[in-house]
Amino acid sequence: MIKTASFELVEADVKRVEARMREGIDGHNESLAAAIDYLIAAGGKRLRPVIVLLGTRFSPDIIDEEKAISLAAAVEMLHTATLVHDDFIDSALLRRGIPTLNTRWSPGATILTGDYLFARSAALAAETDNVRIIKIFSMTLMTIVNGELNQFFNNGHLRPPTRDEYFQRIYAKTASLFAAGAETAGILAALPEYQVQALHDYGYNLGMAFQIMDDILDFQGNEARLGKPVANDLRQGIATLPVLIFLDKIPNHPTIMKAVAKKHPSEAEIQAVVAEIRASGGIQGAWQEACRFAAQAQEALSPLPDNQFRVALGDLADYAVARDI
Amino acid sequence: MIKTASFELVEADVKRVEARMREGIDGHNESLAAAIDYLIAAGGKRLRPVIVLLGTRFSPDIIDEEKAISLAAAVEMLHTATLVHDDFIDSALLRRGIPTLNTRWSPGATILTGDYLFARSAALAAETDNVRIIKIFSMTLMTIVNGELNQFFNNGHLRPPTRDEYFQRIYAKTASLFAAGAETAGILAALPEYQVQALHDYGYNLGMAFQIMDDILDFQGNEARLGKPVANDLRQGIATLPVLIFLDKIPNHPTIMKAVAKKHPSEAEIQAVVAEIRASGGIQGAWQEACRFAAQAQEALSPLPDNQFRVALGDLADYAVARDI
Repeated sequence: MIKTASFELVEADVKRVEARMREGIDGHNESLAAAIDYLIAAGGKRLRPVIVLLGTRFSPDIIDEEKAISLAAAVEMLHTATLVHDDFIDSALLRRGIPTLNTRWSPGATILTGDYLFARSAALAAETDNVRIIKIFSMTLMTIVNGELNQFFNNGHLRPPTRDEYFQRIYAKTASLFAAGAETAGILAALPEYQVQALHDYGYNLGMAFQIMDDILDFQGNEARLGKPVANDLRQGIATLPVLIFLDKIPNHPTIMKAVAKKHPSEAEIQAVVAEIRASGGIQGAWQEACRFAAQAQEALSPLPDNQFRVALGDLADYAVARDI
Repeated sequence: MIKTASFELVEADVKRVEARMREGIDGHNESLAAAIDYLIAAGGKRLRPVIVLLGTRFSPDIIDEEKAISLAAAVEMLHTATLVHDDFIDSALLRRGIPTLNTRWSPGATILTGDYLFARSAALAAETDNVRIIKIFSMTLMTIVNGELNQFFNNGHLRPPTRDEYFQRIYAKTASLFAAGAETAGILAALPEYQVQALHDYGYNLGMAFQIMDDILDFQGNEARLGKPVANDLRQGIATLPVLIFLDKIPNHPTIMKAVAKKHPSEAEIQAVVAEIRASGGIQGAWQEACRFAAQAQEALSPLPDNQFRVALGDLADYAVARDI
């Protein structure tokens, strides 16, 4: 779990969210229960539940805490389900530095576990007893999956994405669920509509900032720290913002063209172009974009009551772009 | 679509259900839209939507037809989603006599299409605006997936299932969704609780009968007619009711022990044991079980008003066990 002073506001509830994620498995397959424990123990920053929990605290009335916990668990479970399938599809070996489920289990067991988590996530969302929230959930899953399919089929283009395509991709991949989590928190808290919209916009912008930072970190770390090789996306033919900014300066760079054409550059070529991207200001430029989204996330909060929860959400936006680059 | 005089009652609505299943894809990936069209065009008996549609007709008031169509579409979409993943996991080549999605698409695209269909199914269920219905939906998906996982991991036992294990498996695989479809139809129709329960019990028993018949047909047909080889389940190490009844007479039959131990009997061994099972009365015995469930389905209908829709549901139970064996 991420640690800043503000997160302590909801730290106890995040533990309850993790416990809720482990529930509901009684009488079901024991290996499945073990897999869910494994996935939850693998951790993660729990940023999505933190946003949901903070969002629900704006309620002017006493909120049903159990529903808030279930909603936060639903968001994190949906996220976990998509990771299980993504890691299988990408044949990823590590996630958060530990072996992925697909390295330990058969394809069938891995896919079915992901399916179970989708169903469990829907059940958790339904525990809010709020149809509007449930609808946003199912729409968000469609958005996420559609984005992945676009990436799959657009790879047929074998060219770098436009900026718009890049932003659409990271919206589908990350910002859509951040936006949905924040928005549904506002709905559960029965906030007035303009504040629900404010939370949605906050989540959207935070999610965009967060994904750009993830894309930057892909160029920053090393394998031991990230749990995956540097420039992992580029190795898979995916050009992210640092690459696109670099291409503005050096159009049609041969290694990048080779990578997006799925012609798999050599290790030496990858290392060389990573050094070039780092030296070019591509990472700095991407960071400025992330900061722009983080600032918009801050601004989006202004219609909300000025309280410790708003401060905490603001801290989160600062945190998103302060991860060590 | 299945054809009996009674189905004509809802035939026009089944067309609307198919149209509803194609909706909601605007602005989403074109290849995905093509895949959904392909899956819907591949047909199927549409038995589940027929049950839902007939169930909603018991409403004493005018029912919101759009919600009934969405609910029926949600049930068929959930069924379709599970088939897409199952066929991928089983590396199945044909479904309903036409090539499966996984033979035409990459693993990633196939899995993501299944995920999209799960999300779409949840969205369709949410169109009923009824949280109880939505909860039954997510629970049913958990039941289905858990059953598949049990099958996966119990295969580790490498022995034939007990009768109870067999019935649990076909409940999870088929009867759970039949029961959920009929029950949620009753809920949408705002029927009194004892009638909702009657529809649930009808769906459960019909689903059990239907799956036993499917398991019988696996021993009856030939590859050209079924779109898959005879004794397909046994080839995969799955012992169904005709096999279990046969084993009551010939315990530890070597070919069957070999099959369930995943030691892949030869084609000649399979053909020989299929002939033995057919000659043993194993199929006749399984058919009697199916008829018992079909009769229970008929009986379950008695608390419902005696009208043409009840007659139609009764016909469906007759139909389930009259498929040519």
